[in-house]
Amino acid sequence: MARAREFGLEAGIMSPGAGNAITDVPGVRVGHTTLRRGSVNTGVTAIVPQPGNLFLDKLTAAVEVINGFGKSAGLVQVAELGTLETPILLTNTFGVGTCVNALIRRAIAETPAIGRETSTVNAVACECNDGPLSDIQALAVTEADALAALDAAGADVAEGSVGAGTGMSCFGFKGGIGTASRRIAIAGRDCHLGALVLANFGRAGDLVLPDGRRPDPRIAPQPEKGSIIVILATDAPVDQRQLQRICRRAGAGIARLGAFWGHGSGDIVLGFTTANRVPHFPQGDTTPLVRLSDSRIDDLFRAACESTEEAILNALCTATEVTGPGGLTRPLLSDWLRGH
Amino acid sequence: MARAREFGLEAGIMSPGAGNAITDVPGVRVGHTTLRRGSVNTGVTAIVPQPGNLFLDKLTAAVEVINGFGKSAGLVQVAELGTLETPILLTNTFGVGTCVNALIRRAIAETPAIGRETSTVNAVACECNDGPLSDIQALAVTEADALAALDAAGADVAEGSVGAGTGMSCFGFKGGIGTASRRIAIAGRDCHLGALVLANFGRAGDLVLPDGRRPDPRIAPQPEKGSIIVILATDAPVDQRQLQRICRRAGAGIARLGAFWGHGSGDIVLGFTTANRVPHFPQGDTTPLVRLSDSRIDDLFRAACESTEEAILNALCTATEVTGPGGLTRPLLSDWLRGH
Amino acid sequence: MARAREFGLEAGIMSPGAGNAITDVPGVRVGHTTLRRGSVNTGVTAIVPQPGNLFLDKLTAAVEVINGFGKSAGLVQVAELGTLETPILLTNTFGVGTCVNALIRRAIAETPAIGRETSTVNAVACECNDGPLSDIQALAVTEADALAALDAAGADVAEGSVGAGTGMSCFGFKGGIGTASRRIAIAGRDCHLGALVLANFGRAGDLVLPDGRRPDPRIAPQPEKGSIIVILATDAPVDQRQLQRICRRAGAGIARLGAFWGHGSGDIVLGFTTANRVPHFPQGDTTPLVRLSDSRIDDLFRAACESTEEAILNALCTATEVTGPGGLTRPLLSDWLRGH
Amino acid sequence: MARAREFGLEAGIMSPGAGNAITDVPGVRVGHTTLRRGSVNTGVTAIVPQPGNLFLDKLTAAVEVINGFGKSAGLVQVAELGTLETPILLTNTFGVGTCVNALIRRAIAETPAIGRETSTVNAVACECNDGPLSDIQALAVTEADALAALDAAGADVAEGSVGAGTGMSCFGFKGGIGTASRRIAIAGRDCHLGALVLANFGRAGDLVLPDGRRPDPRIAPQPEKGSIIVILATDAPVDQRQLQRICRRAGAGIARLGAFWGHGSGDIVLGFTTANRVPHFPQGDTTPLVRLSDSRIDDLFRAACESTEEAILNALCTATEVTGPGGLTRPLLSDWLRGH
Repeated sequence: MARAREFGLEAGIMSPGAGNAITDVPGVRVGHTTLRRGSVNTGVTAIVPQPGNLFLDKLTAAVEVINGFGKSAGLVQVAELGTLETPILLTNTFGVGTCVNALIRRAIAETPAIGRETSTVNAVACECNDGPLSDIQALAVTEADALAALDAAGADVAEGSVGAGTGMSCFGFKGGIGTASRRIAIAGRDCHLGALVLANFGRAGDLVLPDGRRPDPRIAPQPEKGSIIVILATDAPVDQRQLQRICRRAGAGIARLGAFWGHGSGDIVLGFTTANRVPHFPQGDTTPLVRLSDSRIDDLFRAACESTEEAILNALCTATEVTGPGGLTRPLLSDWLRGH
Repeated sequence: MARAREFGLEAGIMSPGAGNAITDVPGVRVGHTTLRRGSVNTGVTAIVPQPGNLFLDKLTAAVEVINGFGKSAGLVQVAELGTLETPILLTNTFGVGTCVNALIRRAIAETPAIGRETSTVNAVACECNDGPLSDIQALAVTEADALAALDAAGADVAEGSVGAGTGMSCFGFKGGIGTASRRIAIAGRDCHLGALVLANFGRAGDLVLPDGRRPDPRIAPQPEKGSIIVILATDAPVDQRQLQRICRRAGAGIARLGAFWGHGSGDIVLGFTTANRVPHFPQGDTTPLVRLSDSRIDDLFRAACESTEEAILNALCTATEVTGPGGLTRPLLSDWLRGH
Repeated sequence: MARAREFGLEAGIMSPGAGNAITDVPGVRVGHTTLRRGSVNTGVTAIVPQPGNLFLDKLTAAVEVINGFGKSAGLVQVAELGTLETPILLTNTFGVGTCVNALIRRAIAETPAIGRETSTVNAVACECNDGPLSDIQALAVTEADALAALDAAGADVAEGSVGAGTGMSCFGFKGGIGTASRRIAIAGRDCHLGALVLANFGRAGDLVLPDGRRPDPRIAPQPEKGSIIVILATDAPVDQRQLQRICRRAGAGIARLGAFWGHGSGDIVLGFTTANRVPHFPQGDTTPLVRLSDSRIDDLFRAACESTEEAILNALCTATEVTGPGGLTRPLLSDWLRGH
Repeated sequence: MARAREFGLEAGIMSPGAGNAITDVPGVRVGHTTLRRGSVNTGVTAIVPQPGNLFLDKLTAAVEVINGFGKSAGLVQVAELGTLETPILLTNTFGVGTCVNALIRRAIAETPAIGRETSTVNAVACECNDGPLSDIQALAVTEADALAALDAAGADVAEGSVGAGTGMSCFGFKGGIGTASRRIAIAGRDCHLGALVLANFGRAGDLVLPDGRRPDPRIAPQPEKGSIIVILATDAPVDQRQLQRICRRAGAGIARLGAFWGHGSGDIVLGFTTANRVPHFPQGDTTPLVRLSDSRIDDLFRAACESTEEAILNALCTATEVTGPGGLTRPLLSDWLRGH
C-alpha cells in the first residue's frame, strides 16, 4: 500500500517527522480492531496519547467543532476543562455508547477510586457513519472490540481500510484511517505535530489534489453525509487556548482538498499536547507550565493544516476495497492515481 | 410528599401552569425507572417531548453549557442543528452509553430507514454523578431500564428520589427530580414554559431559600462534584437562537439558590419548543415558521429562571430518604422546613 | 482592470449572478471613499444592505470570527440578537471609532428617537491594517469620509485599490476590495449569495490559484499581520442559525487559496439576509418567517465558499499600484498573470 | 456616602480585601471624568490594570458575554488572544468610538512603533446606555475627557454617580460605579480578586437584597434596557481558560440580586490577571508560567460572584441624586435603606 508521497502528493511545505505519522510525537500509540463479517465492515481505532495512567496524569487538550452534525462523546468536558483523561476511541456512529462503556470499565480497572473516592471519568469516543459500506444497525462493536484496539496500540500505524476506517468513504472513493506529521523546531529542540484522521467526508467530484488534479470516482454525487474526525497530537508546549486555535486550522486542511464542511458532515477536531500535564491530585495550589510564544504559533497552525490534509490523502491512497451490503464497493484513489 | 409551595416557598412572581410541571406544556410526558437494590440507588428518567415519531418530525432545540464538567451525549449536534430527534434520557454518569444504545435501538425500531436509507440518529442522554449514594461502578442501568422509563412516560411527574434522581444530593440534602412551570400569554393564547431538573449540585451550607433563610444540613461542606441537568420545554413559538438564550437563563435560577456553578458541577441546560417542528424529509425548499418578537422574550427568560429555581426546590422538598453504600444518608430539606 | 474570470480563474462550479457581485442580491449597494494624499493611502467602503431605515426594519444577520485578531465594532450584538441595524463600514484599523461615530450620527438623523424614546443603535464597522502602505497613525479617516462612502453607495462595485482597500496587501501582492456572487434556485425562484471582501491577508508565497499555480511575488515572506473581512449577502430565506453556519464556510474559501488563518490575521465574516426582516417596533407578539430547509443549505455553503474565494481573486486581479510610506509598493497579481 | 456594609449588607461569606475594592489587587488604579452640564450627565471611568507600558507587557485577560445587547469595543481580540494591551475605559454607549480613538492615540504616544514597525493596538472600551438621565445624542464625551480619566487613575475608587456611572440607573434606583474585593490565600500568599461594576441594569421591583428584602423604588417597571459592565481583576496565577470561567461567575452575582440578564441588557464581563504577563516582543520561543490548580478554582469562582454582587450593592448605596433631561430623577437606595 503506497502512501501519498509515493504517488507524488505532498501537502504544503513543512518537513514531516520520521514516520510521517501521529506516532512521531513521542509516546503516542495507535491500535485497531477490524470487523469484517458478512455485511458488517467496521471497527475501532484507539489513540493512546501517552503511556501510564491518563486519569491521574491528564493531558492538556482542546476541541474544535467545525460542523457539529456528529455524535461523539466526551467533547463537552474537554472543551470546558481543557483536559483529556482517557485514550480516544474512534468507531462507527452506533458504536459510541459501547466504546464509552469500555473506556469507563478500563479506567475503573486502572484507578479503582473513580466514582467512589474521587470523581468520575470522561470517556472520549468519536465517530463517523459507515452506513453505506457496513450494516450500522447491527451495533456490531462490542466492549471487547474496543479493549482489543486499546491493547493493540503501538508505534506503527496501519492506514486505510482498517479499524474504524474499515467501512468509510471519502469524496466518493474508499476512505478510512490516515496519518501524517510535521516537524517544528522550538527552543532548539525538535517538536512534532501529528494528525490521525478518520476520513469519511466529501462529495464525489469535489476532491482537488495538491497538484490541482480533480479525480473523478465516476459515481453520482450525493449530499455529504459522512464526517471526518481529526486527532491532533503535539509535544510542543502549548496551553489549551493555543491548542484550540491549532485544532481550528485542521479545517483549512480539509477545505484545501475541496470540501466545504457540508451540512451532513460531522467534522470534529480533538487535539492534545504531551507537554503541560495536569495532575488529578495536584501537589500544591499551583503548577509551573511552559507556554509557546504566540509569535511561533503560525508554525503549529501550518503544521495542523498540512498534517490534516496529508493524513486524508494517506487515508485515500492506502484504502483497499471493501464490499458492503448489497455488494456496494467504492473505487480506490490509488487505482485512479495509477491510471493518471 | 409536599412540594415547595406547600412549605410556602415560591420562586419569583409569575403564575405556574395547572400542574406546575413540565407536562403543562401540551404533549410532554415524563417516566421513571427506579433501581434500588443493595448499594445501588439509581435509575433513568425519560422526557418524551411529544407523541409520535420524533426522528421524522423533529423539535427545535437548543443547549446551554453553564459548566461543562459533564458527560452528557448528543449535545454537539443539538447545538449545531438546533433539533432534537429522540426523547431525552437522564441517568447516572456511567449509564449514558447504555441509554444512548437504548435510544438508538428504539429509534431504529420506529424508523427502520435510519442508518440505511437515511442518516443516523442523535441520541440525547444527560447525567449526574450519584456516586456517594449509589455504587456507580456497578454500571447498573440496562437498556431495558432505559426503555422502561420511556414506556412509563405520562403526564404525571413523580418527583424526589425517583428515576435518575434516586441517588442524587443537593446542597448537602437529598436531591433528585423536580419540576415546575410558568404560564405566559402570547398572541392571546396561554403558552407555558416548564422545567424538569435532575438536581445533584450545591455545596452544603450554600443554599438560600427564596425567603432568605439558609438551611444547614449539618454536614461538612465539600467541593461541588455534583451537577444539575435542566430540561426546559415550551410551546411558545421561538426559534433556536431565542431558545438558546432562554436556556441560558436557567443559570440565573440556579444562582438565586446560592450556587455559583462550581468547577466540579456539570451544569447543562437543554431546551425544546413544541412549535416550529422540523421535518426530516421536508416537503419543499422552505418551511413557514412563526417567531416570537424579541420584545416579548423577557417573559420567557423570567419563566426559565423561575421554573428552574422552583423545580430545584420541588426536588429538595419531595426527596425521600435513600441509604447508600456504607449506610450513608442525606438529611431531608422537608425535615428542616418542618422544624423551622 | 480585468477580473479573475478574464484571466481564466474561476472558483468552484456554481454559476455567478449577472454582475458576479454582492449587488446581485437585490437592494444591496456599495460605495467608496478613497483617500490618497502623501503617505496616506486608505479609505472607507460602505455596504448598504437595503434601502430605507435599517434601524426600524432590521435585517437578520450573523457573525463568524475565524480568527479574532481584529478590532471590528458591533459584532457582539449581531452575534447575540442576530440583527443588523446600520450599514456596514469597512476601513483601516484606526478608523473604526470614527466610522462608529458617523454611523451613530447618521442613524440619529434618520430616527431621532434613538437613545431618547427608544434604545440606542449598534454601529457595525470592520477593519484591516493597511499599515505598510499607509500611515495608519495619521487617523486620517473623518466622519465626513464615512458619510461620503454611504452616500456614494450604488449597484456598481468598484474593485481593487479603492475605498477601504486602497492600502491593503494580500499574499505579498497588492490587495483591496473584491466581490463575486453565486446564483441558487430556491422554491422555483432565483436567489443569490454574494460576497464582498476587504483582502489584506496571506503570507507571500502561500497563494495557490484554482488551477494549481503558485504565483510568487518575489518579496520576503513575513508573518501574516493582515486580516480579511468578508461580507456575505443573500436573499435566500435563512434564519440566524443557518446564516451563521453559512458565514463559517467563507473560511473554506480563504483556505483554498493557501491561507491557514494566520495568528496575526483578523479574519471576520459578517452575513445578512434580506429575507426575514425584523421590525424594531413589532406589530404583535409574533412574526411569520420562512426558513430554508436544511436539506438545501449545502448550496448556500458552497456559494459562500466559492464567492469568497472568487471575491479575493477579483481583489487581487483588479488591484492597481499604490505607493506607501518610504516608496513601498506591492507587485500586482495581474502583472504576474499576464507574464505566466 | 455609606457603602453596603455600613447598611449591614454583605454578599456571601468570603473576606474582603483591605479596601474592599478592585484596587486591592496590587497595581490596579481607577480614575474618573464626570460630565454634568445641562441635560448631560455622563462621563468616563478608566481602569488602569498595571503601571507601565501595557502594549509591550500585556496582561492575560478573558471576556464573558452574558448577554450581548451591547456595543463595547475590543472584546473579539481579547477573546481570541487572551490578552489585554490597553487600559479599559467605561463610558456611555455613544462614547465608545471616541474612547477608542483616545486609547489608540495614547498607545501610539507611548509606543511609536504601533502600526508602523509593529502591529496595531486593540483598544478596549465598554459602555452602558445612560439615556434616561443624560442626553446621549449629545455625544458629549471627548478624547480629552477619556485621557483625563486615565490621568486621574489612583488607588482610591470613587463610587456612585461618578465617571461613567454619572447617569446610570439600576433596578429603578440611581445606579453607577461600585467596587468590592475578596481575599484568597494561594500557595501561602494573600491574593485578591476585585470587581468594578458600571451598574445600569435591573427592572424596577426585581431587586432582592442579600437579607431577602425587596426594595421598591415606586416607579413603573419597564423592560430592562440597561446593561452592566463588570471588570474583574486578580493577581492569582490563572490562565486564560480559567479566567474566562471566573468571568462567567460574575453572572451568578448579578442573578442573586434578582436580575435574569434581560434581553435589552448588555451584560459583559472582562477579567484580567496581573500574573502571567505576555511580552509583545518575547525573548524566546517559550515563556514560563504558573497556573492555579483547578482544585482551587472554586475560591475564585465564589470571589467573582460575591465581589460582583457586592460591587453592585456599593454602586446602589453610594449613588447620589442626578437630574436628567425633563427633570427626571431616580430614587436612592440609600434613602430606602435609611427608612426601612
